[in-house]
Amino acid sequence: MPTTVSAFGAHEAGRPLAPVTIERRDVGPNDVRLDILYCGICHSDMNFVDGSFGPLPVSPLVPGHEIVGRVTETGSAVTRHQVGDLVGIGCMANSCRQCENCRAGQEQYCLGGHTLVFGSPDPAEPGAHTQGGYSEAIVAPEDFVVRVPETLDPAAAAPLLCAGITVYAPLKRFAAGPGTKVAVVGLGGLGHLGVKMAKAMGAEVTVLSRSDSKREAAAALGADHYAATGDRTAFTELVNTFDLILNTVSAPINLADYLGLLRLHGTMISVGVTTQPMPLDVFPLLQNGRSYAGSLFGGIAETQEMLDFAAEHQVTADIELIGAQDINTAYERINASDVRYRFVIDGSTFKGLTA
Amino acid sequence: MPTTVSAFGAHEAGRPLAPVTIERRDVGPNDVRLDILYCGICHSDMNFVDGSFGPLPVSPLVPGHEIVGRVTETGSAVTRHQVGDLVGIGCMANSCRQCENCRAGQEQYCLGGHTLVFGSPDPAEPGAHTQGGYSEAIVAPEDFVVRVPETLDPAAAAPLLCAGITVYAPLKRFAAGPGTKVAVVGLGGLGHLGVKMAKAMGAEVTVLSRSDSKREAAAALGADHYAATGDRTAFTELVNTFDLILNTVSAPINLADYLGLLRLHGTMISVGVTTQPMPLDVFPLLQNGRSYAGSLFGGIAETQEMLDFAAEHQVTADIELIGAQDINTAYERINASDVRYRFVIDGSTFKGLTA
Repeated sequence: MPTTVSAFGAHEAGRPLAPVTIERRDVGPNDVRLDILYCGICHSDMNFVDGSFGPLPVSPLVPGHEIVGRVTETGSAVTRHQVGDLVGIGCMANSCRQCENCRAGQEQYCLGGHTLVFGSPDPAEPGAHTQGGYSEAIVAPEDFVVRVPETLDPAAAAPLLCAGITVYAPLKRFAAGPGTKVAVVGLGGLGHLGVKMAKAMGAEVTVLSRSDSKREAAAALGADHYAATGDRTAFTELVNTFDLILNTVSAPINLADYLGLLRLHGTMISVGVTTQPMPLDVFPLLQNGRSYAGSLFGGIAETQEMLDFAAEHQVTADIELIGAQDINTAYERINASDVRYRFVIDGSTFKGLTA
Repeated sequence: MPTTVSAFGAHEAGRPLAPVTIERRDVGPNDVRLDILYCGICHSDMNFVDGSFGPLPVSPLVPGHEIVGRVTETGSAVTRHQVGDLVGIGCMANSCRQCENCRAGQEQYCLGGHTLVFGSPDPAEPGAHTQGGYSEAIVAPEDFVVRVPETLDPAAAAPLLCAGITVYAPLKRFAAGPGTKVAVVGLGGLGHLGVKMAKAMGAEVTVLSRSDSKREAAAALGADHYAATGDRTAFTELVNTFDLILNTVSAPINLADYLGLLRLHGTMISVGVTTQPMPLDVFPLLQNGRSYAGSLFGGIAETQEMLDFAAEHQVTADIELIGAQDINTAYERINASDVRYRFVIDGSTFKGLTA
């Protein structure tokens, strides 16, 4: 028997979200059900809702992919989780599990196409779409549910499920650590966690931001250095400096400027999505043998590794906790860059909202 | 006492080369002098001579940076080479030796600016410029002279000094080897050595070329597979296939097409110089966590390593040997893509040419 739960969703692209009720499927043998304690608001939720990723895949669409909750029911074959466990769900609710990328633990690159936690056709329920974390409760396959260490503040841990793994995975892959110099471009939801993660890994961290306005905030997050790129002198002063540049900006940048900041065999990694192509001159790549890489959140095993790392180093997001009724206002404030650094919805506030 | 040697050089950008005489400096304490046996013709020689790299740095300018010769004289402090040794000189005749890149053995990325084997102000001779390998003899610092194994055909080994190291260095750095799939884009001087080197490293090699015209030639070089990209089906059939793509084409390509061919964490490496920027959409980089890298020939130690590897695996260039009087014709034929795969000048033919 499916269960009806209170949620917040979009009926139409470009319109405000509203209270909705949705059905959650029965807990299958390999599923767990959790009560959602907290759900972060990520910019890509907004991209889905405002139509920039195309028409709504289903109406209503319930966004939310930075979910922390407690297990309330487990399927008969579940071995990973128990009732009462603090757990998380990120961007994915399933994948093909067969392709070479899934077998490599990189389900985010599933060649069959992974199942997003919201807005994807749900292989577990033919004809239905997945619905996300702006809701009271959710049912998901145990293999796509990770353990959240109890030593983490669960509200501040919610953004780790997307923003955290998105910055952790490339920093780890490209060996940020003691002796490496890392620049973080942009100091929003992704960037502030990029600073914290890179510092926790032992790197020397510089924040690159257009103006001087975030200098103190960067220092408060633990950044060692700060450079305002608006006046362009940073691009000459910091030439050939960084081993890694983590570009968290979801807008085109001047690639030659930033690539020029990389030292020998350095890599710039973009984790933000831009839809406009950027002109790339190959010379800055030839110099110093530089690379430009992309990275898309992370696999399930490395998400678990990231959460354990976050617990060990006490890395969580700086958040502003809101109730469900404030989601539309939060979207407006995110568009105005008025958040430090992540809104997180209190999952207890969905119940009783009237549509 | 400097020595006058016969050479072939450019008096003016965009004009045919002509016989010239140039002075070679005395052998200093750390220098060696060699009689040039062979010198390859590389496309970048032509870029200097035709003015596409700007005005001639000196007139006359003697090109040539794929040099194999025999040591005829050694300075008093020389320890690396002896009279009679078969040796080579590539793109560089010196570097600052102090910067972090030089200290890392990556002198090609010298932050002080390396001394090209021709056309650079010569730190060893204030006021003079270096002059290259289209000549009878050359004097260079021993540290920038490498040993050429006697088991290599010295004429066919000459192109290894630039083309060979240019493909070897990135294939090595990005771990081409057994179990990896490598695509080589373009089958010219660089590409044909890319195929041979990648095969020698143990990789499975596919040649990507516009038409079918080089299919047999690719197989003759040892390529395992061939795909003509002109009809575009290759870009769908080979999606998510390669660990490495070695792009040897010196012209803009459709980056999204080629990046799409890379499998999980794959890297495309450009070694050809294009002066036009290419539009880059970040999505193909985000998918599969792909990278796009540049690579500029190689350092001195890895050039030596490459020559030893080439001797072990009997890798040399497929060449057409010419006399100095045929250099201008060779340039025309290279521009018409009428060479398989590299012209090499017989160094004994410079003597007696009249200006």
